[in-house]
Amino acid sequence: MRFHEQVEVHGHLMDTGVLARVLDDVLAYGGDYRVDKIDLGRTHDDESHAVVTVGAESASRLARILMRVQVHGVNKLVPGEARMCVADADGVFPEDFYSTTNLETVVHLDGQWVPVEHPEMDCGLIVSGGRVRTVPVADVRAGDVIVCGIDGVKVVLPVSDHSTRLHGEFASMSTFSSTAAQPQAVLVKAIARQIREVKAEGYQVLWVAGRAVVSTGASRALTALVEAGYVDVLFGGNALATLDLERALFGSALGLGSPHSRRVQRGNEQHIRTVNTIRRAGSIRAAVESGLVTKGVMHAMVKAGKSFVLVGSVRDDGPLPDVYTDVVAGQRAMRAALRGVGFTVMVATTLHSVATGNILPASVPVACVDTNPSIVSGLTDRTSAQALGVVADAGLFLEQLATELVPDYQT
Amino acid sequence: MRFHEQVEVHGHLMDTGVLARVLDDVLAYGGDYRVDKIDLGRTHDDESHAVVTVGAESASRLARILMRVQVHGVNKLVPGEARMCVADADGVFPEDFYSTTNLETVVHLDGQWVPVEHPEMDCGLIVSGGRVRTVPVADVRAGDVIVCGIDGVKVVLPVSDHSTRLHGEFASMSTFSSTAAQPQAVLVKAIARQIREVKAEGYQVLWVAGRAVVSTGASRALTALVEAGYVDVLFGGNALATLDLERALFGSALGLGSPHSRRVQRGNEQHIRTVNTIRRAGSIRAAVESGLVTKGVMHAMVKAGKSFVLVGSVRDDGPLPDVYTDVVAGQRAMRAALRGVGFTVMVATTLHSVATGNILPASVPVACVDTNPSIVSGLTDRTSAQALGVVADAGLFLEQLATELVPDYQT
Amino acid sequence: MRFHEQVEVHGHLMDTGVLARVLDDVLAYGGDYRVDKIDLGRTHDDESHAVVTVGAESASRLARILMRVQVHGVNKLVPGEARMCVADADGVFPEDFYSTTNLETVVHLDGQWVPVEHPEMDCGLIVSGGRVRTVPVADVRAGDVIVCGIDGVKVVLPVSDHSTRLHGEFASMSTFSSTAAQPQAVLVKAIARQIREVKAEGYQVLWVAGRAVVSTGASRALTALVEAGYVDVLFGGNALATLDLERALFGSALGLGSPHSRRVQRGNEQHIRTVNTIRRAGSIRAAVESGLVTKGVMHAMVKAGKSFVLVGSVRDDGPLPDVYTDVVAGQRAMRAALRGVGFTVMVATTLHSVATGNILPASVPVACVDTNPSIVSGLTDRTSAQALGVVADAGLFLEQLATELVPDYQT
Amino acid sequence: MRFHEQVEVHGHLMDTGVLARVLDDVLAYGGDYRVDKIDLGRTHDDESHAVVTVGAESASRLARILMRVQVHGVNKLVPGEARMCVADADGVFPEDFYSTTNLETVVHLDGQWVPVEHPEMDCGLIVSGGRVRTVPVADVRAGDVIVCGIDGVKVVLPVSDHSTRLHGEFASMSTFSSTAAQPQAVLVKAIARQIREVKAEGYQVLWVAGRAVVSTGASRALTALVEAGYVDVLFGGNALATLDLERALFGSALGLGSPHSRRVQRGNEQHIRTVNTIRRAGSIRAAVESGLVTKGVMHAMVKAGKSFVLVGSVRDDGPLPDVYTDVVAGQRAMRAALRGVGFTVMVATTLHSVATGNILPASVPVACVDTNPSIVSGLTDRTSAQALGVVADAGLFLEQLATELVPDYQT
Repeated sequence: MRFHEQVEVHGHLMDTGVLARVLDDVLAYGGDYRVDKIDLGRTHDDESHAVVTVGAESASRLARILMRVQVHGVNKLVPGEARMCVADADGVFPEDFYSTTNLETVVHLDGQWVPVEHPEMDCGLIVSGGRVRTVPVADVRAGDVIVCGIDGVKVVLPVSDHSTRLHGEFASMSTFSSTAAQPQAVLVKAIARQIREVKAEGYQVLWVAGRAVVSTGASRALTALVEAGYVDVLFGGNALATLDLERALFGSALGLGSPHSRRVQRGNEQHIRTVNTIRRAGSIRAAVESGLVTKGVMHAMVKAGKSFVLVGSVRDDGPLPDVYTDVVAGQRAMRAALRGVGFTVMVATTLHSVATGNILPASVPVACVDTNPSIVSGLTDRTSAQALGVVADAGLFLEQLATELVPDYQT
Repeated sequence: MRFHEQVEVHGHLMDTGVLARVLDDVLAYGGDYRVDKIDLGRTHDDESHAVVTVGAESASRLARILMRVQVHGVNKLVPGEARMCVADADGVFPEDFYSTTNLETVVHLDGQWVPVEHPEMDCGLIVSGGRVRTVPVADVRAGDVIVCGIDGVKVVLPVSDHSTRLHGEFASMSTFSSTAAQPQAVLVKAIARQIREVKAEGYQVLWVAGRAVVSTGASRALTALVEAGYVDVLFGGNALATLDLERALFGSALGLGSPHSRRVQRGNEQHIRTVNTIRRAGSIRAAVESGLVTKGVMHAMVKAGKSFVLVGSVRDDGPLPDVYTDVVAGQRAMRAALRGVGFTVMVATTLHSVATGNILPASVPVACVDTNPSIVSGLTDRTSAQALGVVADAGLFLEQLATELVPDYQT
Repeated sequence: MRFHEQVEVHGHLMDTGVLARVLDDVLAYGGDYRVDKIDLGRTHDDESHAVVTVGAESASRLARILMRVQVHGVNKLVPGEARMCVADADGVFPEDFYSTTNLETVVHLDGQWVPVEHPEMDCGLIVSGGRVRTVPVADVRAGDVIVCGIDGVKVVLPVSDHSTRLHGEFASMSTFSSTAAQPQAVLVKAIARQIREVKAEGYQVLWVAGRAVVSTGASRALTALVEAGYVDVLFGGNALATLDLERALFGSALGLGSPHSRRVQRGNEQHIRTVNTIRRAGSIRAAVESGLVTKGVMHAMVKAGKSFVLVGSVRDDGPLPDVYTDVVAGQRAMRAALRGVGFTVMVATTLHSVATGNILPASVPVACVDTNPSIVSGLTDRTSAQALGVVADAGLFLEQLATELVPDYQT
Repeated sequence: MRFHEQVEVHGHLMDTGVLARVLDDVLAYGGDYRVDKIDLGRTHDDESHAVVTVGAESASRLARILMRVQVHGVNKLVPGEARMCVADADGVFPEDFYSTTNLETVVHLDGQWVPVEHPEMDCGLIVSGGRVRTVPVADVRAGDVIVCGIDGVKVVLPVSDHSTRLHGEFASMSTFSSTAAQPQAVLVKAIARQIREVKAEGYQVLWVAGRAVVSTGASRALTALVEAGYVDVLFGGNALATLDLERALFGSALGLGSPHSRRVQRGNEQHIRTVNTIRRAGSIRAAVESGLVTKGVMHAMVKAGKSFVLVGSVRDDGPLPDVYTDVVAGQRAMRAALRGVGFTVMVATTLHSVATGNILPASVPVACVDTNPSIVSGLTDRTSAQALGVVADAGLFLEQLATELVPDYQT
C-alpha cells in the first residue's frame, strides 16, 4: 500500500466491538491495516485506546477510507488543518467533500478547533464567518465554502458527557436495545422516567408517530400525553393526521372493531372526504379554531400550541393542506423543529422514523416502538448513540406510558 | 329509516362474499337494509343477482352509504341522471362530490351513459365537453364542473370482459392470492406466461421495485428482463436508483456479503457521494450517456429507451436529480406513465406499490411479491380485480422469472 | 353425477360467508352442487336457511364430501340412522369412519338423537352403552364400535345458546378478531370482563403460555393473576417452566437487559443446571414444598393448588420431571384437564396453542395473544366459534390484564 | 474477589467480538475480570491471543463462570486434571457436573488429553474405559462416572482444521449469515457447491424439513434431490410426512391454489383419514411397498433406502405409525442418525431445526432457510460454527437448488 495514515480511537473498544467494525470497513473499502498499539485497560471500567495504520493504493481511496471509519469515532492521529473548496454549482458538493457523521465534530481552522453546529449525518460542512455547520446536498449553493477531505476534522464519540444527562437506567438498558426478549413493562417505565427527567431539564420531547397510533386505539392515550405536556413536537405523515381527523369528524360511523381495514377496498370515500373538508377549512388549525374538529390528537396539539410537521409521501391521498408535498422542504421543516429536542419517541412508523434518524444528532436519545423486531433493531442501530428498542404494539405501549406519566389517566 | 333506495348487484355473490361486505358496510355507516330479492343461480357457473333496499336517517347519509357500497359494484336500481356542481376553490371539491372507485364507471349525462376516462379510486369526476374523467383533489380548479351525489353514476364489476384478456391460469389463481401456502414456482411460471401474453397483445408491463431488488442481488436478473423488453415502465424511489448506481460506480469496493447493512451506521459516505456524482452529471441519463455509469438496472433502462418515474420520500438522502421531490407532482408523472399498461409487477416495496395501487384502474392485473405475507395480502386485497400474491424474496423470484422469460439467462 | 344428497344449513349465511365455503369445498373434493332453496331473511337479524343438492361420481366420495362440509354446520336434510362398524385393530379406525368436527354433535341411534360427549375435531365416534363420545385414533381399541359414514350424524352450529353465556361485547368483537388494526387496550378490557364473568358462572379459566411470558418480564403479572384465582389450569412446555424456575433459582445472576439471548450460544449451562436441580428434587411440587423454589409462576400454581400440564417437544433440554415426554400421553392429560373450562387464554406460544385448539370444543371462547399477526389469525380462525385475537406482546398484555383484574396490582 | 483463575483464548478476537462476549458473561454471572495480556496480531491474518484473570466471590460461582465462558472457546491457562463424581440416581447429574458445549473438547485423564466423542451441547461427560463421551441428562444412570467442575476440560475453537474441509466461499459467506440483505441466488449456488463437495468427500447430507416444503409446492424439487442422492437423512415431524402422504393418496382432490389453508377449520377429515390409512398399513415403508403410496418425498426416501426420523409434537393428529411419540426417544434416534453427517440443510421448520441444532456438533456446517429473518438469525447464531442463513421461501429455494444439483431438472 503506497499511501497510509495513522488513526486512533478511544473508548470501550471491547464492549462495543467498534474496533472489529473499523478493521472490517478498511478491508471492505479495499484498504489494509496494521494495529500499531492497543491498550484495552485492565478492568471493565478502564477506557481503551488503539492506534492503527491504514493503507490504500491511492490517496483518494485512503481519504475515503478515513472518512468512512470516522463513523466509528476514529480520527487521524495527526489531524492537520482543514482544507476547503468552493462549490461550483447549486445543489452539488465539490468532488471530495467531507461527508459527515451525526457525531459531535470539530474542525481545525486557523489553528482553532471549531465545533460543528447541528451535527447531522450524510451532509457537507459549510464554513462561513469562522463558524462551521452541516449542510445537506440539496441546500448547498454555488460559492459556498465546503470542507474537503478528512484533514482537520475530528469526531468525538459520545461517552461520559452525555451519560450524565441521561437517566442511568435508560443508558444501561440502551446497550441491549434491539431484542424481543426484554421485559417491556420495565422498558416503558424507564422511558417514562427518562421523559420526565428530560422535561425537568428544559429539553423538548419529539414524537414521531405512524397511523397505527390511531388505528390501534391509542389516540386517547396520546391525546392525554399531549395535554399533559409530554409532546412538544410531532412528526408524522398525511395518514396519521387524516385518520385522526376522520375519527374526529365521522367517529360514530366507523366504530370499534370495524372490519373495513381488512376488506377489499376500491376506494375510501370517508378518508378522502375528510381530506376535502380540511382543505376547505384551509388548515388543521383553522378546522380546530372554527369548531369543526373538537377532539383527537391534532386537536390537542393545536389547542396546546405545540408544533407538528407533516411530510407527505407518494402514497398519500389529498393530502391535507398542512402536509409538505415537497419532501426536501419537509426535511427542512423537520430540521428547524429539532432545536431544543432532548428525547425522541418513535412509534409505529418506519418511514418518518428513518427520516428523523437521518437528521438527528447522535447525542439525542431515542426510544423506538414497533411490533416488528427487525424494524426496531434497524432503527436503534442506525440513529442515536443511546437508543432503546421496545418490541410492542402502539396501543398497549401508549396506554401504559400514559398511565405512568398522566395523573388520573384511566385506561 | 326515513330515506331509502333500492340497489342491485350482479356477479358471483356467494363465491366472493361481496354481499356480506355490502350489508356490513351499510350497518357500519349507520344505515339499515332489507334484502328484496336474491337469485344465486343453481350451479357454480350461474351468475347471481340481488336487490336490496338500503335506508338511512338522512338523505346525505343515504348518499354516502350508496357511494360507499359502490366499491363492491352495487348500483342504484334506478340510477337517474347525474347532478353536477361547480368547484368554488382550487384544490377543493364541492361538499357532496361523488368519490370514485377504481372500477369501470359510467355517468348518465343528458340521457347518455358516458364512460369515465382513466378510472382511479378516491377521485372526483370532472365533466367537460360531454366527457367525464377522474380528477384527484389536488388538481381540481375553481370553476370545474364536478359530479355530486350518487345519482346517474354506475360502476361495472370486472367479470367476463377482462377474463378474456387474462391468461386463464392467472385469473383462476388470483382468486386465492394472499396466502403463504402456495406453490411459488408455479406462481412464477404463471406470471411469466401472463407477461408474455400481455406483451403479445401490445400492452406495456409496469414494474414497481424497491431497493431490496438491488440489495438481494437481483439486479442482474432485472437488468436482463429490461434488456429482453419485459420492463416498459419502472416506478421506484431514490433508494432503488441510488443503490443501483452506487454499485455501478463503486461496485468493487462493497462486494458480496458485505456486512455493512447490519452494522451501526452514523453516515453512509458512499451513498451520498453517489448522489452527489449524479447530481454533478445532471441526470441519470446524462451519467449513462457520458459513460460514467456503465451497468445496472438504471443503465439498462436508459439504454433501452424505457421510461422510469422516481418519486422521493422524506427519508431520502440527496436525492438524485431525476427524483420528484414533490409527491403530488410525482403522482401526476406516474399517472401519465400508466397509459398502455396491461400488467403490473410489484416487488419488495410497500410505499411505491401502495402508491401505484392508488392510481391503477381495477382492470389492470397485478402481481405482488414480498417476503412479508401481511404486505402481500394488503396489496392484493386493495388494488386490482385480479391480483396474484407471491410470498417470496425478490432475489429468487427475479432469478426464476428471468430464467423463464430470457433465453440463455444463466442463473 | 350419479350419487347425490340434499343438505341444509341454517344461520347467518351472508355475514359469515359460510355458504361460499361449503360450495368451494364441494368443488375442491371433486363434487358438484345445485342450490335448491335459499332464504336469507330480509333484515340483518333474520336467520337464513339454504338447501343444496350435492353430487359426486361415487358413493364413497359423496360420503367424504358430506363429512367435509359438516365442519361448516351443513347436515343432510334427511339424516337417517347412524351406521356402526367394529374396529379391527388397536389404534386404527374402520375405513369409512365418521371424522368429527369440534361442534356440538348429535347421533341418531335407535330413533333417538344422542348428544356426543366431549366434542373434539378429527376424532372418531365410539358408541357404548347407548352413549356416544369422541375418541382419537391413537386411543381406539380393537372391538370398539365406531360410527361410520355420515348417516345419522348432525352438527349444531353455535348460535344463540352460547351467546347468552358470553359477554356481549366479547361476542361482537370476536367476529372481527384476526386483524392488527384493533384498539388493543379495549380488547384487553373485554377479555378481563369476560374472564370475570366466566369465573362468576363457575367455569374455569385455562391458560396456554409460552416462554416469552417469562422472557418478556411478564411472570410477575401472571403470578399475580394466579394468586388472584384467574388461572385454573396452565398448559405449556418445558421451556416455560424451566425459564421460570431458572429465574427463581438463579434470578440475580441474569438480570434485566441480559444480552445473552441474542448472542452466539453453544450451550446454556444455567438452563440445564436448573433442569438437573428439579430432577434431583423429584418434581416441581417437591421443589416448591422443600423450599428450594420460592417464587415465580410455577411456585404460585403449586401454592394455589392449581393444575398444570407440561408437554414436551423434540427441542427440549432435560426435560423437567413433570414434563410428559410422550406427546400422546400429554394430549390425554390435556383432555382430562379441560373439564369445566369456560374460557381459554393463549399467550405467546404457537405449538401448545394449536395443540389446545385441536382438542377444545368450539363452544369454549378463546383469546389469542401474539406479536405475530399471522399466528393470531391462524389460531383464531382454527379453534373456537368465538375467538378474539390480540396482536400484542405478552409483556404489556399481561401487565394491563393484571391491572384490570387484580386489585392493588402495581405495574 | 477471593477466588480467581487465569484463562486464555486464541483466535480472531477482533473480528468475532468474542472477547467482548466473554467479558460480558463474566460480569453477567456476577464475576469480575482483569485483562492480563492481549496480542491482537498486527495484520488481518494474524491470530490473536488473550489472557484474562477471572474472579468471583465463591469457588462454586467461579467454576460456573469458567464453564459458561468455555462456550466462547476460553480455557483455563493451567487446566489441571479432570475430577469425577458418581451419579447417584437415574436421570440426574451430580450437582456440579461439567455442562458441555458443542465444540471439540478434550479431557485430561491420567495425564492424557482424551477427546470427547460426539460433542453435543448441554450434556454431561461420562467417563468409561478410558474414553469420554457426552450424555444427556435423561440418559445418565446411577453409578455412571461423570466429569465435575471445569478442571481438566478444554475446548478447541473451530479455526483452520474445519475450514480446509469447507468450500472457501461458503466459509467466508457464513461469517455474514443472518441478514436479509444478501444475494440469495448466489447463496443457493454456494450451498449447492458445498453439498457436492461434502458428498464427494464421503459425508452424508442431513435435511431438516417443515411442512411448508410440501405446502409451498416444493415437494417435487425435494423428491428430485432425494432421487439424485442429495438427501441421506431426513428429520421432520408428523405434519411434513402426513401432508406429503395426503397429496400422494388424495392429490387430485385438493389441487393447486386450494383455498382451504386459509379458511376456518373445525376439522380436517382428509388429513386424519391419511393418518388412519397409513396406520392400517403399519408403516410408511409398508404403505410404499404395498403400492398404496406411489409418489412424493416419503416414497422417494423409502425407495432410495434412505433413513428418516420423524418426531412427534403435542399438536400432532394421529400420529403416523413411524412417528416417535416420545420426544426423548426421538432425540436418541436423531443422535444415532447423525453419524457421518457432514452438512445440514434446515428448511422451513423452527421446532425440528432447533432440536437438530441442539444435538449437532459445532463442526458440521449448516444452511438455514426460512422466510422469517428472526428465525434464520436465531438458528444460525445458535448452532454450527459455520452457518449460512438464507431468508427465502422453501418453494423457490428448493426449485433453484434442484436446478443446480439435478441434471435435467425442469422447473
